[in-house]
Amino acid sequence: MADSETPGDLIATMGQGARVAAQDLARLPTDTKRRGLEAAAAAVQAAADAILAANDRDMTRAAEAGLSGALLDRLRLDPARLAGMVAGIAAVAALDDPVGRAIDERTRPNGLHLSRVRVPIGVIGIVYESRPNVTADAAALCVMSGNAVILRGGSEARDSNRAIHAAFAAGLGEAGLPHDAVQLVPTTDRAAVGAMLAADGLIDLIVPRGGKGLVARVQAEARVPVLAHLDGINHVFVHASADPAMAVAIVVDAKMRRTGVCGSMETLLIDRTYPQAATLIAGLQAAGCTVRGDAGVRALADVDPADEADWDTEYLDAIASVALVDGVDGAIAHIAAHGSHHTDAIVATDPDVAECFLAEVDSAIVLWNASTQFADGGEFGLGAEIGIATGRLHARGPVALEGLTTYKWVGRGAGQVRG
Amino acid sequence: MADSETPGDLIATMGQGARVAAQDLARLPTDTKRRGLEAAAAAVQAAADAILAANDRDMTRAAEAGLSGALLDRLRLDPARLAGMVAGIAAVAALDDPVGRAIDERTRPNGLHLSRVRVPIGVIGIVYESRPNVTADAAALCVMSGNAVILRGGSEARDSNRAIHAAFAAGLGEAGLPHDAVQLVPTTDRAAVGAMLAADGLIDLIVPRGGKGLVARVQAEARVPVLAHLDGINHVFVHASADPAMAVAIVVDAKMRRTGVCGSMETLLIDRTYPQAATLIAGLQAAGCTVRGDAGVRALADVDPADEADWDTEYLDAIASVALVDGVDGAIAHIAAHGSHHTDAIVATDPDVAECFLAEVDSAIVLWNASTQFADGGEFGLGAEIGIATGRLHARGPVALEGLTTYKWVGRGAGQVRG
Repeated sequence: MADSETPGDLIATMGQGARVAAQDLARLPTDTKRRGLEAAAAAVQAAADAILAANDRDMTRAAEAGLSGALLDRLRLDPARLAGMVAGIAAVAALDDPVGRAIDERTRPNGLHLSRVRVPIGVIGIVYESRPNVTADAAALCVMSGNAVILRGGSEARDSNRAIHAAFAAGLGEAGLPHDAVQLVPTTDRAAVGAMLAADGLIDLIVPRGGKGLVARVQAEARVPVLAHLDGINHVFVHASADPAMAVAIVVDAKMRRTGVCGSMETLLIDRTYPQAATLIAGLQAAGCTVRGDAGVRALADVDPADEADWDTEYLDAIASVALVDGVDGAIAHIAAHGSHHTDAIVATDPDVAECFLAEVDSAIVLWNASTQFADGGEFGLGAEIGIATGRLHARGPVALEGLTTYKWVGRGAGQVRG
Repeated sequence: MADSETPGDLIATMGQGARVAAQDLARLPTDTKRRGLEAAAAAVQAAADAILAANDRDMTRAAEAGLSGALLDRLRLDPARLAGMVAGIAAVAALDDPVGRAIDERTRPNGLHLSRVRVPIGVIGIVYESRPNVTADAAALCVMSGNAVILRGGSEARDSNRAIHAAFAAGLGEAGLPHDAVQLVPTTDRAAVGAMLAADGLIDLIVPRGGKGLVARVQAEARVPVLAHLDGINHVFVHASADPAMAVAIVVDAKMRRTGVCGSMETLLIDRTYPQAATLIAGLQAAGCTVRGDAGVRALADVDPADEADWDTEYLDAIASVALVDGVDGAIAHIAAHGSHHTDAIVATDPDVAECFLAEVDSAIVLWNASTQFADGGEFGLGAEIGIATGRLHARGPVALEGLTTYKWVGRGAGQVRG
C-alpha cells in the first residue's frame, strides 16, 4: 500500500482487478482450472524452502510476541504440513466442477426451454487468522468454483502467507489463468478488513475463517453477505429408546474425539426416563471429560453443577454440560432455546421419535444415531469445505464448491413473444 | 402502537410472535397449509364489501393528497380486482409444496445416509407500497412455503391493507393456522420500516415490493438479507445472423408490450453488420416508441441522439436507447458496463454465438430468441412470484415458493462415530 493510498482505495483497486478476473474465470473449462491448480500445487511444492523460511520468520516474531502454544502450533509449517497443503490443492483440482451444471430444466407450453445453470458467485473475500494453510485451501476452492478471491490473512502469518501466495499465483499464471484470480491483501492493517466488509458491489461474499472474535466482527460490520458460523453449541439427545452401547460410543466421540472443533458436542441432553444415564456420564468422565450437570444429573452422578450460562457456552474443551429433559419435545425445546443452529444429534431406536427430532430441530445439520463430529465437508462427501454456515440463506452446513456457486436462468426460444 | 412503544419494541414483539408461528408453520403438512389458504381466500371474498369500503376511504384520501393517476390506479380495488386477488390466493394453495423435498441424497462409505431437505426460511418481512393486492399475494406465498410473514404496506393503502389482512388472518385462524403466521405492522410510521430492516435474528429475509426509491432505501439500510432488484436495464442484442422478422417481433414485444414492467427492454444493441437495422428501428417507431440512437444509429434512421446517461437509464416508458456494437463481444461488453443483471436477450440463428452470449452475460435471466417480457414467475412456470432478484446469492431471477425455502442436512446413521 503506497503511503497515500487508503485501505478503501487499495480494496477498490484489488476488487476491480478481481472482478475482471472473475469474468475470465467464470468461462474457463474445467480442465483449464484443473491445470491451473495442479501448476499452483507444483509451484507451492517447488517453493518449499522459501515458504518454510518465511514461516520461520513468522514463528520467531510470534514467539517474541508471546503467542500461546496453541497459536504457535496453528502458525507452524513443516515439510509434512506443506506436503499436506500441496496435496490439498491437488485434491480440490480433482473434484467435480459445479459450474455449468443444470439444476433443473423445463419446457413451457409455448416451447420456451428454460434451465437453471450453476455459475460462480464472482469475487469471494476470505478473512482469516493464523493458519497459513488457509491461503492455499481457500484459494484452491475459489478457483475451482470459478471465483476470483481476495485473501486477507492475519499479521502473525504475514511472511508465510506472502510466500504461499506468491508461489500459488505464479503457478496459476504459468498455466494461463488470470493474474488477479488470487490476490493477497498486501497490508495487515486492520482497516483493510473493514474496507473488504464494506466493498458491496466489488466483493460478493465474505467467508471469515478463524475464532469467534473474528467471525463476530465480520458479521457485525459486513455490508457484504457473510457465510460463516459463530458458535457450535451442539447437542446430543439420548432418547429413552436409545441403544445404551451406541449412546455411550456416540456421546464420547461427539465430545472427546477432538474437543476444539466446531462440530464437537457441548451439551448432552438425556431423556428423563432413559435408564442408563449414569453410564453415559461415567463414560464421559472415563474419557477425561469434566461434566457439569443440572439438579437431575447431580442426583445420578458426582458432577459439578451447571449454571444457566453453561447451556449457552461453547467450551471447545473437555467439558460438557448435561441436562435431563422430558422426551423429544423437551430436547427440541432446549435446543431451540440454547442451540446455535449448527449440528444436533439424537440417539434413539424409535424411528418416529427420531424423525420428529430431525424435522423439528432447526439446525443446519441434524443427525440420527451418528456423532456430531461428522460435521465436516470431507465427511459429507464434498471433498473439502470453505467453512460451515449456520445462516439461513444460500448455503447451510458444510460449504464446498457448490456453495461457492449461484445460478442463472437460461432460456432458449424460437422467437417467442409475450404478446 | 401504544404511545410509549417504540418502533423497535413493536417490531421485536411482532418478530418474536412470528418466530413462534414460524416453528409451527414449518411442520405443517401441505394439506393443512392448503386448507388455511383456501379459508383465507374465502374470508377475503366474504369481506368484499368491507374491503372495498376501506379502499374507497384510501382512494378519497389519496385523491385529496393529489396522488397521480397511475398511483391511484395501483391503489384502486374493484370487485373484479378483488376476485383476482382471491383467485390468486387459491392458485398459490394449489402449487407444489417445496418443504420437505430432498434436493439430493448420498450414502457415505461408512453407511451414514445424508440428504439435503428443503425447509422454510423462517420469518419474511415484506415492505411494499401502494398496491393492496400485495397484502394477499405475498402472505399466500409465505404461508404456502411455511414461513411466517410481517407485512408493512404503504400509508396510502392503510385501510385497504388492514381490511384485507383482517380477513386473511381470520380465515387462516379458522383453519387452525397459527395466529401470528401473517401479521400486518399496525403503524405506517416510516420508522417501523427501519426497525424491520434492523431486525437481524427476528426477520430472516426482507422482500421490498415497490418503486426504485423503496428498494434503494431497503438495500442501503438493511442489516437483514434482501431479495430484490433495483433496476431492470434489459438489453436485446440482434446479431448479424438474426432472422429479421423474428428480430422485429421480439424487439417490439420486449419494449412495447408493457413499458412499465421490470422485464421490458430499455436498450437495443444491433450488430454493426446486421443488414436490417433500419427496419428494426422503424418497427419500434411504428409501435409508438421514441428512439434515442448513438452516432451509428443516427446515420441509419431519423432518431434523437442518445447521450451517455441513456445507456444507464431504466425508462419504464415508450423510449428505447439503441446502439450499434461490434458482434457478440461488443454486446457482452456493453451489457457488462451498463446492465443491471436482470434480463438480457440475444436474437440470432447462429447457435455458437447464442451460446457464447448465454454463457458470458452475467444476468439472472439470459434468453435466446425470446422476449425479455417473459421475465416473470408465472411465465417461467413457477405459478407466482414474490419478486425478481438480481443479487448473486440464494435465489436469482423470478423467486417463488422454492426461493422462500432453504435446506438442512439430515443424516441417518446406525451408530457411526468419527473415531
